Amino acid sequence: MISPGQRIAIIAGRGTLPALAAAELEAPFVAALEGFAPEGVAPDVFFRVERLAPFLDHLRDQGVGQVLFAGAVQRPRLDPALFDAATAQLVPRLLPALQGGDDALLRAVIGVFEDWGFQVIGVDQVAPDLVPGPGVLCGMVTPGDERDAARAAILTAALGPLDVGQGCVVAQGLCLAIETLPGTDAMLDFVARSATGLRPDPKGTRGLLYKAPKPGQDRRIDLPAIGPATVARAAEAGLGGIAWAAGGVLLLDRAATVAAASAAGLFLWAREP
Amino acid sequence: MISPGQRIAIIAGRGTLPALAAAELEAPFVAALEGFAPEGVAPDVFFRVERLAPFLDHLRDQGVGQVLFAGAVQRPRLDPALFDAATAQLVPRLLPALQGGDDALLRAVIGVFEDWGFQVIGVDQVAPDLVPGPGVLCGMVTPGDERDAARAAILTAALGPLDVGQGCVVAQGLCLAIETLPGTDAMLDFVARSATGLRPDPKGTRGLLYKAPKPGQDRRIDLPAIGPATVARAAEAGLGGIAWAAGGVLLLDRAATVAAASAAGLFLWAREP
Repeated sequence: MISPGQRIAIIAGRGTLPALAAAELEAPFVAALEGFAPEGVAPDVFFRVERLAPFLDHLRDQGVGQVLFAGAVQRPRLDPALFDAATAQLVPRLLPALQGGDDALLRAVIGVFEDWGFQVIGVDQVAPDLVPGPGVLCGMVTPGDERDAARAAILTAALGPLDVGQGCVVAQGLCLAIETLPGTDAMLDFVARSATGLRPDPKGTRGLLYKAPKPGQDRRIDLPAIGPATVARAAEAGLGGIAWAAGGVLLLDRAATVAAASAAGLFLWAREP
Repeated sequence: MISPGQRIAIIAGRGTLPALAAAELEAPFVAALEGFAPEGVAPDVFFRVERLAPFLDHLRDQGVGQVLFAGAVQRPRLDPALFDAATAQLVPRLLPALQGGDDALLRAVIGVFEDWGFQVIGVDQVAPDLVPGPGVLCGMVTPGDERDAARAAILTAALGPLDVGQGCVVAQGLCLAIETLPGTDAMLDFVARSATGLRPDPKGTRGLLYKAPKPGQDRRIDLPAIGPATVARAAEAGLGGIAWAAGGVLLLDRAATVAAASAAGLFLWAREP
């Protein structure tokens, strides 16, 4: 058995995050789940959950010591015929996680990687710019926006244990929308369509999108993300800005996102939780 | 000072509920807030919040002993010039309620009516058919639907203290939508538009709309309501049925609602809380 080395592997899911993380690293080893190819970076290898054990051995052979999960992965379907003997041994441990919530699955996957001797690290450790600390990145946050954000933070914290979503829209203290399975974009479309006339005070806050990780979530995996497309939809929803729990949300393309928000007159605010 | 009599007054808001309640009563006295005329019944008198005290005296003069709140009322704007001296005395009590949540306002209003000697009664006391007890009114409820309803009941109970809404949509255990300020119809439109492809199992439950009063809510006032229009929108959202907390939700036009649900293949289920 060889000891893990010092190379970093990116376990890539969909979207632009794997490429953004790879750009920050020297010679990363990029692995992607079959069927979930990332954008902008070519994986060195594809793997399947049914062959997780030989894949982990392969990572070790490549000198990998640290592992970074980056990008979205939906729950894969498993083909019983494809399991090797070593991975089959992991099934009793992974199966309850595959049947439970996302959190349970991610904790189990991290546990397996750690058992193989890998250190699982977070995106903030290799690319701190992707996970902004506290501060207003652009625009102006008024006392009314601060009150809306405080109410939104209470709502998302209370929703955490219910496992329904990680965001909401609040304007003038009123909750216009709560994120559910269809996701952030669908929620913002809903606000644009159904909540336009519901802000009681024409001079009051235009409202904000608020995003936060679940309370107690392992921040090495599956952080909520915002980017230029989020800004465009927030503007269409008539919002005044986007706020999020500082250190707990990915800002996917900082320069483009800030430019888009500035152009649309929206604030971007990484709020001290 | 005259003692209250035995006539029942309906304090009518918008919608069809005041007329439905009036049809169950012998010679009710119908009063409506200015600007919120009910459908299908002509008010005997209109009143304003700024003249609440003389209005309550007038009710007593009419031999009214019991008061029934029926129908939706939005928070009225107050004109300081219109207050009489007696109503002005009530302002310190009503103002915090007018600035707080709906629950606080309704509790304060009930308190003022009770101080005047009126008994505030619930719709279920005069028209039990409008507030169905436990049972399946039409269609078939599967074990999967029962699991969806159980999850939905947990969600609405957890949302209660957050004061964001009183309903949600659950399919195959997944929360597709949570009711917020735009209301039930907007939520069902959202499901029709954004959640169609998100039910993982084509053979699984189609999902249900669940409605419940807030935990601890005074059931004499402002119960959530469903009717034929709710059924039409639930069908458009691809749902399998509508479930609600038995005894805590108004069924506004029972015959038409059951007929519409039966025609659309939807179940209607007053679920034992």
